[in-house]
Amino acid sequence: MSHSTPSLLARLSLNQETVRQWSLPELADGCARAGLRGVGLWRAPVRDYGVAAAARLVRDAGLTVTSLCRGGFFTALDPAERAAALDDNRAAVDEAAALGTDTLVLVSGGLPAGSRDLHGARERIADALAELAPYAAERGVRLAIEPLHPMYAADRCVVSTLAQALDLAERFPAAQVGVVVDTYHLWWDDTIGAQIARAGGAGGAAGAGSRIAAFQLADWITPLPEGVLLGRGQLGDGSVDLRWFRERVDAAGYRGPVEVEIFNPALWARDGAQVLAEVVDRFTAHVG
Amino acid sequence: MSHSTPSLLARLSLNQETVRQWSLPELADGCARAGLRGVGLWRAPVRDYGVAAAARLVRDAGLTVTSLCRGGFFTALDPAERAAALDDNRAAVDEAAALGTDTLVLVSGGLPAGSRDLHGARERIADALAELAPYAAERGVRLAIEPLHPMYAADRCVVSTLAQALDLAERFPAAQVGVVVDTYHLWWDDTIGAQIARAGGAGGAAGAGSRIAAFQLADWITPLPEGVLLGRGQLGDGSVDLRWFRERVDAAGYRGPVEVEIFNPALWARDGAQVLAEVVDRFTAHVG
Repeated sequence: MSHSTPSLLARLSLNQETVRQWSLPELADGCARAGLRGVGLWRAPVRDYGVAAAARLVRDAGLTVTSLCRGGFFTALDPAERAAALDDNRAAVDEAAALGTDTLVLVSGGLPAGSRDLHGARERIADALAELAPYAAERGVRLAIEPLHPMYAADRCVVSTLAQALDLAERFPAAQVGVVVDTYHLWWDDTIGAQIARAGGAGGAAGAGSRIAAFQLADWITPLPEGVLLGRGQLGDGSVDLRWFRERVDAAGYRGPVEVEIFNPALWARDGAQVLAEVVDRFTAHVG
Repeated sequence: MSHSTPSLLARLSLNQETVRQWSLPELADGCARAGLRGVGLWRAPVRDYGVAAAARLVRDAGLTVTSLCRGGFFTALDPAERAAALDDNRAAVDEAAALGTDTLVLVSGGLPAGSRDLHGARERIADALAELAPYAAERGVRLAIEPLHPMYAADRCVVSTLAQALDLAERFPAAQVGVVVDTYHLWWDDTIGAQIARAGGAGGAAGAGSRIAAFQLADWITPLPEGVLLGRGQLGDGSVDLRWFRERVDAAGYRGPVEVEIFNPALWARDGAQVLAEVVDRFTAHVG
Protein backbone atom coordinates (compact mmCIF):
# COMPACT_ATOMS: atom_id res chain seq x y z
CA MET A 1 0.00 0.00 0.00
CA SER A 2 1.37 3.40 -0.91
CA HIS A 3 0.13 6.76 0.28
CA SER A 4 1.52 10.26 0.31
CA THR A 5 3.22 11.42 3.48
CA PRO A 6 1.82 14.65 4.91
CA SER A 7 4.35 17.44 5.37
CA LEU A 8 5.85 17.72 8.81
CA LEU A 9 4.05 20.99 9.55
CA ALA A 10 0.75 19.33 8.66
CA ARG A 11 1.49 16.81 11.39
CA LEU A 12 2.05 19.45 14.08
CA SER A 13 -0.44 19.18 16.91
CA LEU A 14 -0.73 21.52 19.88
CA ASN A 15 -1.23 19.93 23.24
CA GLN A 16 -3.74 21.95 25.16
CA GLU A 17 -1.56 22.27 28.27
CA THR A 18 0.93 24.34 26.27
CA VAL A 19 -1.69 27.09 26.18
CA ARG A 20 -3.51 26.48 29.44
CA GLN A 21 -4.67 30.11 29.35
CA TRP A 22 -7.02 29.24 26.49
CA SER A 23 -10.53 27.89 27.00
CA LEU A 24 -11.52 25.02 24.75
CA PRO A 25 -13.35 27.35 22.30
CA GLU A 26 -10.30 29.65 22.25
CA LEU A 27 -8.11 26.61 21.63
CA ALA A 28 -10.23 25.33 18.76
CA ASP A 29 -10.47 28.76 17.19
CA GLY A 30 -6.81 29.64 17.75
CA CYS A 31 -5.52 26.37 16.31
CA ALA A 32 -7.81 26.60 13.30
CA ARG A 33 -6.70 30.19 12.60
CA ALA A 34 -3.07 29.09 12.81
CA GLY A 35 -3.72 26.38 10.23
CA LEU A 36 -3.13 23.50 12.61
CA ARG A 37 -4.87 20.20 12.01
CA GLY A 38 -4.55 18.58 15.41
CA VAL A 39 -4.85 19.19 19.12
CA GLY A 40 -3.99 17.04 22.11
CA LEU A 41 -6.56 17.31 24.89
CA TRP A 42 -6.68 16.72 28.64
CA ARG A 43 -9.51 15.05 30.46
CA ALA A 44 -10.27 17.68 33.10
CA PRO A 45 -10.98 20.62 30.78
CA VAL A 46 -12.82 18.31 28.35
CA ARG A 47 -15.08 17.02 31.11
CA ASP A 48 -15.67 20.53 32.41
CA TYR A 49 -16.82 21.58 28.94
CA GLY A 50 -18.71 18.37 28.26
CA VAL A 51 -17.19 15.52 26.29
CA ALA A 52 -19.72 15.51 23.44
CA ALA A 53 -19.66 19.29 23.17
CA ALA A 54 -15.87 19.30 23.13
CA ALA A 55 -15.81 16.66 20.42
CA ARG A 56 -18.20 18.73 18.30
CA LEU A 57 -16.34 21.96 18.93
CA VAL A 58 -13.02 20.55 17.83
CA ARG A 59 -14.47 18.71 14.85
CA ASP A 60 -16.32 21.81 13.68
CA ALA A 61 -13.03 23.71 13.79
CA GLY A 62 -11.59 21.16 11.37
CA LEU A 63 -9.29 19.70 13.98
CA THR A 64 -8.38 16.12 14.86
CA VAL A 65 -7.84 15.10 18.47
CA THR A 66 -4.39 13.52 18.32
CA SER A 67 -4.34 12.19 21.88
CA LEU A 68 -6.14 12.35 25.20
CA CYS A 69 -4.16 12.81 28.41
CA ARG A 70 -4.41 10.83 30.54
CA GLY A 71 -5.22 7.51 32.02
CA GLY A 72 -2.99 5.42 34.20
CA PHE A 73 -2.11 5.59 37.92
CA PHE A 74 -2.21 1.82 38.06
CA THR A 75 0.13 1.17 40.96
CA ALA A 76 -2.16 1.31 44.02
CA LEU A 77 -1.95 -1.66 46.38
CA ASP A 78 -5.32 -1.07 47.99
CA PRO A 79 -7.97 -3.13 46.12
CA ALA A 80 -10.65 -0.44 46.31
CA GLU A 81 -8.24 2.19 45.07
CA ARG A 82 -7.16 -0.13 42.30
CA ALA A 83 -10.75 -0.87 41.24
CA ALA A 84 -11.48 2.86 41.19
CA ALA A 85 -8.42 3.45 39.00
CA LEU A 86 -9.59 0.82 36.52
CA ASP A 87 -13.10 2.34 36.44
CA ASP A 88 -11.61 5.75 35.85
CA ASN A 89 -9.50 4.38 33.02
CA ARG A 90 -12.51 2.82 31.36
CA ALA A 91 -14.14 6.24 31.52
CA ALA A 92 -11.01 7.74 29.97
CA VAL A 93 -11.21 5.22 27.13
CA ASP A 94 -14.86 6.14 26.56
CA GLU A 95 -13.94 9.82 26.48
CA ALA A 96 -11.13 9.18 24.01
CA ALA A 97 -13.51 7.27 21.76
CA ALA A 98 -16.09 10.06 21.98
CA LEU A 99 -13.43 12.60 21.01
CA GLY A 100 -12.47 10.49 18.02
CA THR A 101 -8.88 9.91 19.07
CA ASP A 102 -7.27 6.51 18.96
CA THR A 103 -4.63 7.35 21.56
CA LEU A 104 -5.05 7.43 25.34
CA VAL A 105 -1.82 8.51 27.03
CA LEU A 106 -1.05 6.68 30.26
CA VAL A 107 0.96 8.02 33.17
CA SER A 108 1.40 4.75 34.92
CA GLY A 109 1.71 5.80 38.56
CA GLY A 110 4.44 6.05 41.18
CA LEU A 111 5.20 4.06 44.30
CA PRO A 112 2.36 3.72 46.80
CA ALA A 113 3.04 5.51 50.09
CA GLY A 114 5.67 3.63 52.05
CA SER A 115 6.50 1.20 49.25
CA ARG A 116 9.97 0.76 47.79
CA ASP A 117 9.01 -2.02 45.41
CA LEU A 118 9.56 -0.68 41.90
CA HIS A 119 9.33 -4.12 40.34
CA GLY A 120 5.99 -4.87 42.00
CA ALA A 121 4.60 -1.52 40.91
CA ARG A 122 5.61 -2.23 37.33
CA GLU A 123 3.93 -5.62 37.45
CA ARG A 124 0.69 -4.04 38.67
CA ILE A 125 0.84 -1.79 35.62
CA ALA A 126 1.06 -4.86 33.41
CA ASP A 127 -1.93 -6.38 35.22
CA ALA A 128 -3.97 -3.22 34.66
CA LEU A 129 -3.02 -3.12 30.98
CA ALA A 130 -4.22 -6.70 30.61
CA GLU A 131 -7.61 -5.69 31.97
CA LEU A 132 -7.93 -2.47 30.01
CA ALA A 133 -6.36 -3.17 26.64
CA PRO A 134 -9.20 -5.32 25.25
CA TYR A 135 -11.82 -2.85 26.52
CA ALA A 136 -9.95 -0.02 24.80
CA ALA A 137 -9.37 -1.96 21.60
CA GLU A 138 -13.12 -2.66 21.28
CA ARG A 139 -13.61 1.11 21.27
CA GLY A 140 -10.84 1.82 18.78
CA VAL A 141 -8.50 3.23 21.40
CA ARG A 142 -4.89 2.25 21.88
CA LEU A 143 -3.26 2.56 25.28
CA ALA A 144 -0.04 4.57 25.07
CA ILE A 145 2.44 4.00 27.89
CA GLU A 146 4.41 7.17 28.48
CA PRO A 147 7.81 6.72 30.11
CA LEU A 148 8.37 9.74 32.33
CA HIS A 149 11.73 11.18 33.30
CA PRO A 150 13.34 9.24 36.18
CA MET A 151 12.87 12.26 38.44
CA TYR A 152 9.17 11.28 38.55
CA ALA A 153 9.73 7.62 39.42
CA ALA A 154 8.67 7.90 43.06
CA ASP A 155 5.54 10.00 42.86
CA ARG A 156 4.22 9.79 39.32
CA CYS A 157 5.49 7.05 37.05
CA VAL A 158 7.72 4.05 37.73
CA VAL A 159 8.15 3.60 33.97
CA SER A 160 11.25 5.72 33.43
CA THR A 161 12.75 4.63 30.11
CA LEU A 162 11.50 3.76 26.66
CA ALA A 163 13.00 0.30 27.15
CA GLN A 164 10.79 -0.26 30.22
CA ALA A 165 7.72 1.03 28.38
CA LEU A 166 8.42 -1.33 25.50
CA ASP A 167 9.02 -4.25 27.86
CA LEU A 168 5.49 -3.64 29.14
CA ALA A 169 3.88 -2.88 25.79
CA GLU A 170 5.35 -5.91 24.07
CA ARG A 171 3.37 -8.22 26.33
CA PHE A 172 0.30 -7.09 24.35
CA PRO A 173 -0.64 -6.81 20.68
CA ALA A 174 0.89 -3.72 19.03
CA ALA A 175 -2.54 -2.53 17.97
CA GLN A 176 -3.68 -2.47 21.61
CA VAL A 177 -0.72 -1.07 23.56
CA GLY A 178 1.86 1.41 22.33
CA VAL A 179 4.31 3.89 23.80
CA VAL A 180 4.79 7.65 23.85
CA VAL A 181 8.12 9.09 22.77
CA ASP A 182 8.44 12.43 24.58
CA THR A 183 11.71 14.26 24.14
CA TYR A 184 11.51 15.94 27.55
CA HIS A 185 11.49 12.62 29.36
CA LEU A 186 13.92 10.66 27.22
CA TRP A 187 16.56 13.00 25.84
CA TRP A 188 19.33 12.08 28.33
CA ASP A 189 19.28 8.32 27.55
CA ASP A 190 22.18 7.08 25.42
CA THR A 191 20.17 4.01 24.39
CA ILE A 192 17.23 6.05 23.11
CA GLY A 193 18.15 5.76 19.43
CA ALA A 194 18.18 1.98 19.63
CA GLN A 195 14.96 1.93 21.65
CA ILE A 196 13.15 4.18 19.16
CA ALA A 197 14.18 1.76 16.40
CA ARG A 198 12.88 -1.09 18.55
CA ALA A 199 9.62 0.81 19.08
CA GLY A 200 9.26 1.18 15.34
CA GLY A 201 9.32 -2.55 14.95
CA ALA A 202 12.83 -2.79 13.52
CA GLY A 203 13.50 -6.37 12.54
CA GLY A 204 9.81 -7.20 12.30
CA ALA A 205 7.38 -6.83 9.41
CA ALA A 206 7.46 -3.26 8.08
CA GLY A 207 5.05 -1.11 10.04
CA ALA A 208 3.12 -4.05 11.45
CA GLY A 209 4.77 -4.02 14.83
CA SER A 210 5.17 -0.31 15.44
CA ARG A 211 4.64 0.69 19.05
CA ILE A 212 4.99 4.43 18.61
CA ALA A 213 1.56 5.75 19.48
CA ALA A 214 2.54 9.37 20.00
CA PHE A 215 5.54 11.65 19.58
CA GLN A 216 5.67 14.66 21.85
CA LEU A 217 8.10 17.56 22.00
CA ALA A 218 9.36 19.85 24.73
CA ASP A 219 12.82 21.14 25.47
CA TRP A 220 14.85 20.65 28.66
CA ILE A 221 15.82 23.81 30.51
CA THR A 222 17.40 24.47 33.89
CA PRO A 223 17.19 25.27 36.72
CA LEU A 224 14.25 23.02 37.45
CA PRO A 225 11.48 24.59 39.51
CA GLU A 226 10.29 23.25 42.86
CA GLY A 227 8.30 20.07 42.25
CA VAL A 228 9.88 19.80 38.76
CA LEU A 229 6.52 19.69 36.96
CA LEU A 230 6.31 23.05 35.27
CA GLY A 231 9.81 23.67 33.99
CA ARG A 232 9.61 22.50 30.39
CA GLY A 233 11.23 24.65 27.75
CA GLN A 234 9.95 26.13 24.52
CA LEU A 235 11.39 24.28 21.52
CA GLY A 236 14.94 25.43 20.89
CA ASP A 237 15.48 26.98 24.31
CA GLY A 238 17.19 23.98 25.87
CA SER A 239 19.42 20.95 25.64
CA VAL A 240 17.41 18.58 23.48
CA ASP A 241 18.45 17.85 19.92
CA LEU A 242 14.84 17.86 18.69
CA ARG A 243 15.68 17.33 15.04
CA TRP A 244 17.75 14.26 15.89
CA PHE A 245 14.76 12.81 17.72
CA ARG A 246 12.41 13.58 14.85
CA GLU A 247 14.77 11.94 12.40
CA ARG A 248 15.01 8.82 14.59
CA VAL A 249 11.23 8.63 14.92
CA ASP A 250 10.90 9.16 11.16
CA ALA A 251 13.42 6.41 10.51
CA ALA A 252 11.40 4.13 12.76
CA GLY A 253 8.50 4.55 10.37
CA TYR A 254 6.30 6.85 12.43
CA ARG A 255 4.10 9.12 10.30
CA GLY A 256 1.61 10.30 12.92
CA PRO A 257 1.05 13.57 14.74
CA VAL A 258 3.91 15.48 16.33
CA GLU A 259 2.54 17.06 19.47
CA VAL A 260 4.08 20.00 21.27
CA GLU A 261 3.44 19.71 24.99
CA ILE A 262 5.15 22.33 27.16
CA PHE A 263 4.17 22.95 30.77
CA ASN A 264 5.53 26.38 31.60
CA PRO A 265 3.87 29.24 33.49
CA ALA A 266 5.87 31.77 31.46
CA LEU A 267 4.04 30.57 28.35
CA TRP A 268 0.69 30.62 30.13
CA ALA A 269 1.21 34.25 31.10
CA ARG A 270 1.38 35.30 27.45
CA ASP A 271 -1.16 35.70 24.69
CA GLY A 272 -2.11 32.22 23.49
CA ALA A 273 -1.97 33.11 19.78
CA GLN A 274 1.54 34.54 20.23
CA VAL A 275 2.64 31.36 22.01
CA LEU A 276 1.22 29.22 19.23
CA ALA A 277 2.89 31.35 16.55
CA GLU A 278 6.17 30.95 18.40
CA VAL A 279 5.64 27.18 18.64
CA VAL A 280 5.13 27.01 14.88
CA ASP A 281 8.25 29.10 14.24
CA ARG A 282 10.36 27.05 16.62
CA PHE A 283 8.98 23.81 15.22
CA THR A 284 10.03 24.88 11.74
CA ALA A 285 13.47 26.00 12.90
CA HIS A 286 14.36 23.16 15.28
CA VAL A 287 12.33 20.13 14.21
CA GLY A 288 11.63 20.43 10.48
CA MET B 1 44.69 -14.34 50.00
CA SER B 2 42.21 -14.44 52.83
CA HIS B 3 41.34 -11.66 55.24
CA SER B 4 38.53 -11.03 57.67
CA THR B 5 35.64 -8.88 56.47
CA PRO B 6 34.96 -5.87 58.66
CA SER B 7 31.42 -5.57 60.01
CA LEU B 8 29.12 -3.35 58.02
CA LEU B 9 29.02 -0.68 60.73
CA ALA B 10 32.82 -0.57 60.73
CA ARG B 11 32.60 0.30 57.04
CA LEU B 12 30.26 3.25 57.60
CA SER B 13 31.75 6.56 56.50
CA LEU B 14 30.21 9.99 56.88
CA ASN B 15 30.47 12.28 53.93
CA GLN B 16 31.23 15.73 55.19
CA GLU B 17 28.41 17.40 53.24
CA THR B 18 25.88 15.48 55.31
CA VAL B 19 26.91 17.67 58.27
CA ARG B 20 27.92 20.86 56.51
CA GLN B 21 27.32 22.71 59.78
CA TRP B 22 30.47 21.12 61.20
CA SER B 23 33.93 22.59 60.74
CA LEU B 24 36.66 20.10 59.89
CA PRO B 25 37.80 19.84 63.54
CA GLU B 26 34.19 19.33 64.63
CA LEU B 27 33.81 16.67 61.96
CA ALA B 28 36.95 14.81 63.00
CA ASP B 29 36.03 15.00 66.66
CA GLY B 30 32.36 14.15 66.13
CA CYS B 31 33.07 11.15 63.93
CA ALA B 32 35.73 9.82 66.32
CA ARG B 33 33.36 10.17 69.29
CA ALA B 34 30.67 8.29 67.36
CA GLY B 35 33.10 5.46 66.69
CA LEU B 36 33.26 5.97 62.95
CA ARG B 37 36.38 4.97 61.09
CA GLY B 38 35.95 6.94 57.90
CA VAL B 39 34.96 10.29 56.47
CA GLY B 40 34.42 11.49 52.93
CA LEU B 41 35.78 14.97 52.34
CA TRP B 42 35.19 17.83 49.89
CA ARG B 43 37.89 19.90 48.30
CA ALA B 44 36.67 23.39 49.20
CA PRO B 45 36.59 22.98 53.01
CA VAL B 46 39.80 20.95 52.91
CA ARG B 47 41.62 23.68 50.99
CA ASP B 48 40.22 26.36 53.28
CA TYR B 49 41.64 24.50 56.25
CA GLY B 50 44.86 23.54 54.50
CA VAL B 51 45.35 20.17 52.86
CA ALA B 52 48.26 19.01 55.04
CA ALA B 53 46.59 20.23 58.21
CA ALA B 54 43.34 18.50 57.26
CA ALA B 55 45.18 15.26 56.56
CA ARG B 56 46.87 15.44 59.98
CA LEU B 57 43.66 16.37 61.76
CA VAL B 58 41.74 13.45 60.35
CA ARG B 59 44.56 10.98 60.83
CA ASP B 60 45.08 12.08 64.44
CA ALA B 61 41.38 11.42 65.06
CA GLY B 62 41.88 7.84 63.91
CA LEU B 63 39.89 8.34 60.74
CA THR B 64 40.49 7.26 57.18
CA VAL B 65 39.53 9.52 54.29
CA THR B 66 37.32 7.25 52.21
CA SER B 67 36.96 9.59 49.23
CA LEU B 68 37.56 13.11 48.06
CA CYS B 69 34.83 15.00 46.19
CA ARG B 70 35.39 16.07 43.56
CA GLY B 71 37.17 16.32 40.28
CA GLY B 72 35.59 16.25 36.88
CA PHE B 73 33.82 18.92 34.79
CA PHE B 74 35.56 17.63 31.71
CA THR B 75 33.10 18.66 29.03
CA ALA B 76 34.19 22.18 28.10
CA LEU B 77 34.72 22.83 24.41
CA ASP B 78 36.93 25.88 24.88
CA PRO B 79 40.61 24.74 24.88
CA ALA B 80 41.64 27.15 27.65
CA GLU B 81 38.72 26.08 29.82
CA ARG B 82 39.57 22.48 29.14
CA ALA B 83 43.23 22.93 30.04
CA ALA B 84 42.22 24.69 33.25
CA ALA B 85 39.92 21.78 34.13
CA LEU B 86 42.73 19.29 33.63
CA ASP B 87 45.07 21.38 35.79
CA ASP B 88 42.44 21.56 38.47
CA ASN B 89 41.95 17.81 38.34
CA ARG B 90 45.68 17.20 38.74
CA ALA B 91 45.51 19.40 41.83
CA ALA B 92 42.55 17.33 43.06
CA VAL B 93 44.59 14.16 42.59
CA ASP B 94 47.45 15.68 44.57
CA GLU B 95 45.04 16.63 47.35
CA ALA B 96 43.56 13.14 47.43
CA ALA B 97 47.04 11.65 47.70
CA ALA B 98 47.94 14.08 50.47
CA LEU B 99 44.79 13.11 52.37
CA GLY B 100 45.67 9.44 52.00
CA THR B 101 42.58 8.46 50.08
CA ASP B 102 42.75 6.32 46.96
CA THR B 103 39.43 7.56 45.58
CA LEU B 104 38.78 10.82 43.74
CA VAL B 105 35.09 11.16 42.88
CA LEU B 106 34.40 12.72 39.49
CA VAL B 107 31.33 14.68 38.49
CA SER B 108 31.96 14.61 34.81
CA GLY B 109 30.27 17.81 33.64
CA GLY B 110 27.15 18.80 31.74
CA LEU B 111 26.59 20.20 28.29
CA PRO B 112 28.53 23.35 27.41
CA ALA B 113 26.29 26.40 26.92
CA GLY B 114 24.37 26.07 23.69
CA SER B 115 25.47 22.50 23.01
CA ARG B 116 23.07 19.60 22.52
CA ASP B 117 25.74 17.02 21.80
CA LEU B 118 25.59 14.48 24.62
CA HIS B 119 27.72 11.99 22.73
CA GLY B 120 30.48 14.51 22.10
CA ALA B 121 30.47 15.57 25.75
CA ARG B 122 30.84 11.95 26.83
CA GLU B 123 33.77 11.48 24.46
CA ARG B 124 35.52 14.53 25.91
CA ILE B 125 35.18 12.88 29.32
CA ALA B 126 36.93 9.80 27.96
CA ASP B 127 39.71 12.00 26.55
CA ALA B 128 40.18 13.68 29.92
CA LEU B 129 40.29 10.33 31.71
CA ALA B 130 42.99 9.18 29.32
CA GLU B 131 45.10 12.19 30.29
CA LEU B 132 44.47 12.02 34.02
CA ALA B 133 44.31 8.31 34.85
CA PRO B 134 48.06 7.63 34.59
CA TYR B 135 48.85 10.80 36.57
CA ALA B 136 46.45 9.69 39.29
CA ALA B 137 47.66 6.09 39.28
CA GLU B 138 51.24 7.22 39.84
CA ARG B 139 50.01 8.91 43.02
CA GLY B 140 47.96 5.95 44.22
CA VAL B 141 44.63 7.56 43.34
CA ARG B 142 41.85 5.95 41.37
CA LEU B 143 39.42 8.09 39.38
CA ALA B 144 35.83 7.25 40.29
CA ILE B 145 33.22 8.20 37.69
CA GLU B 146 29.96 9.02 39.42
CA PRO B 147 26.85 8.67 37.31
CA LEU B 148 24.45 11.37 38.40
CA HIS B 149 20.67 11.22 38.18
CA PRO B 150 19.40 12.05 34.68
CA MET B 151 17.88 15.27 36.03
CA TYR B 152 21.46 16.63 36.14
CA ALA B 153 22.37 15.64 32.58
CA ALA B 154 22.22 19.15 31.14
CA ASP B 155 24.02 21.21 33.75
CA ARG B 156 26.17 18.88 35.81
CA CYS B 157 26.87 15.40 34.49
CA VAL B 158 26.14 13.79 31.13
CA VAL B 159 26.94 10.40 32.65
CA SER B 160 23.49 9.40 33.84
CA THR B 161 23.54 5.64 34.36
CA LEU B 162 25.88 3.08 35.81
CA ALA B 163 26.02 1.45 32.38
CA GLN B 164 27.36 4.69 30.87
CA ALA B 165 29.88 5.08 33.67
CA LEU B 166 31.10 1.53 33.13
CA ASP B 167 31.26 2.02 29.36
CA LEU B 168 33.70 4.87 30.08
CA ALA B 169 35.60 3.18 32.90
CA GLU B 170 36.13 -0.04 30.99
CA ARG B 171 38.27 1.77 28.43
CA PHE B 172 40.91 1.97 31.19
CA PRO B 173 42.55 -0.44 33.62
CA ALA B 174 40.29 -1.27 36.58
CA ALA B 175 42.97 -0.11 38.99
CA GLN B 176 42.97 3.34 37.41
CA VAL B 177 39.32 4.13 36.72
CA GLY B 178 36.32 2.96 38.72
CA VAL B 179 32.73 4.03 39.30
CA VAL B 180 30.64 5.31 42.18
CA VAL B 181 27.41 3.53 43.04
CA ASP B 182 25.18 6.14 44.69
CA THR B 183 21.67 5.04 45.56
CA TYR B 184 20.22 8.52 45.15
CA HIS B 185 21.24 8.71 41.52
CA LEU B 186 20.59 5.14 40.43
CA TRP B 187 17.64 3.75 42.37
CA TRP B 188 15.04 4.17 39.60
CA ASP B 189 16.94 2.10 37.00
CA ASP B 190 15.58 -1.39 36.39
CA THR B 191 18.92 -2.52 34.98
CA ILE B 192 20.87 -1.43 38.07
CA GLY B 193 21.16 -4.92 39.56
CA ALA B 194 22.78 -6.25 36.40
CA GLN B 195 25.02 -3.21 36.12
CA ILE B 196 26.22 -3.54 39.72
CA ALA B 197 27.12 -7.15 38.97
CA ARG B 198 28.97 -5.97 35.88
CA ALA B 199 30.77 -3.34 37.96
CA GLY B 200 31.88 -6.05 40.35
CA GLY B 201 33.60 -7.85 37.52
CA ALA B 202 31.08 -10.68 37.19
CA GLY B 203 32.34 -13.13 34.65
CA GLY B 204 35.93 -11.96 35.04
CA ALA B 205 38.62 -13.02 37.49
CA ALA B 206 37.31 -12.76 41.04
CA GLY B 207 37.96 -9.26 42.39
CA ALA B 208 40.54 -8.43 39.76
CA GLY B 209 38.19 -6.47 37.57
CA SER B 210 36.04 -4.72 40.16
CA ARG B 211 35.12 -1.19 39.16
CA ILE B 212 33.25 -0.24 42.33
CA ALA B 213 35.39 2.51 43.81
CA ALA B 214 32.78 3.89 46.20
CA PHE B 215 29.31 3.10 47.48
CA GLN B 216 27.25 6.05 48.66
CA LEU B 217 23.85 6.21 50.29
CA ALA B 218 21.04 8.72 50.35
CA ASP B 219 17.30 8.30 50.10
CA TRP B 220 14.96 9.77 47.48
CA ILE B 221 12.25 12.07 48.80
CA THR B 222 9.73 14.33 47.11
CA PRO B 223 8.82 17.02 46.32
CA LEU B 224 12.15 18.04 44.86
CA PRO B 225 13.29 21.56 45.75
CA GLU B 226 14.04 24.26 43.19
CA GLY B 227 17.31 23.43 41.46
CA VAL B 228 17.00 19.81 42.69
CA LEU B 229 20.39 19.80 44.45
CA LEU B 230 19.51 19.86 48.10
CA GLY B 231 16.57 17.50 48.37
CA ARG B 232 18.17 14.24 49.40
CA GLY B 233 16.51 12.22 52.12
CA GLN B 234 17.80 10.77 55.37
CA LEU B 235 18.16 6.97 55.11
CA GLY B 236 14.77 5.34 55.46
CA ASP B 237 12.74 8.47 54.74
CA GLY B 238 12.20 7.78 51.08
CA SER B 239 11.68 5.42 48.17
CA VAL B 240 15.02 3.66 47.93
CA ASP B 241 15.39 0.04 48.96
CA LEU B 242 18.78 0.67 50.54
CA ARG B 243 19.24 -2.87 51.85
CA TRP B 244 18.61 -4.29 48.40
CA PHE B 245 21.36 -2.05 47.02
CA ARG B 246 23.76 -3.01 49.78
CA GLU B 247 23.11 -6.69 49.14
CA ARG B 248 23.73 -6.25 45.43
CA VAL B 249 26.98 -4.37 46.06
CA ASP B 250 27.99 -7.05 48.57
CA ALA B 251 27.22 -9.75 46.05
CA ALA B 252 29.39 -7.93 43.53
CA GLY B 253 32.29 -8.40 45.91
CA TYR B 254 32.64 -4.87 47.23
CA ARG B 255 34.04 -4.72 50.77
CA GLY B 256 34.99 -1.04 50.96
CA PRO B 257 33.54 1.96 52.78
CA VAL B 258 29.83 2.71 52.73
CA GLU B 259 29.49 6.46 52.66
CA VAL B 260 26.40 8.36 53.68
CA GLU B 261 26.11 11.54 51.63
CA ILE B 262 22.93 13.54 52.14
CA PHE B 263 22.55 17.13 50.98
CA ASN B 264 19.65 18.53 52.94
CA PRO B 265 19.32 21.91 54.65
CA ALA B 266 17.00 20.38 57.26
CA LEU B 267 19.91 18.21 58.45
CA TRP B 268 22.30 21.15 58.38
CA ALA B 269 19.99 23.14 60.65
CA ARG B 270 20.31 20.51 63.41
CA ASP B 271 23.03 19.59 65.86
CA GLY B 272 25.68 17.67 63.95
CA ALA B 273 26.12 14.98 66.59
CA GLN B 274 22.37 14.33 66.60
CA VAL B 275 22.38 14.04 62.82
CA LEU B 276 25.27 11.60 62.93
CA ALA B 277 23.59 9.52 65.65
CA GLU B 278 20.47 9.40 63.49
CA VAL B 279 22.53 8.37 60.47
CA VAL B 280 24.02 5.49 62.46
CA ASP B 281 20.57 4.39 63.68
CA ARG B 282 19.07 4.58 60.21
CA PHE B 283 22.05 2.81 58.71
CA THR B 284 21.58 -0.05 61.15
CA ALA B 285 17.84 -0.22 60.54
CA HIS B 286 17.73 0.19 56.76
CA VAL B 287 21.08 -0.94 55.41
CA GLY B 288 22.49 -3.50 57.83
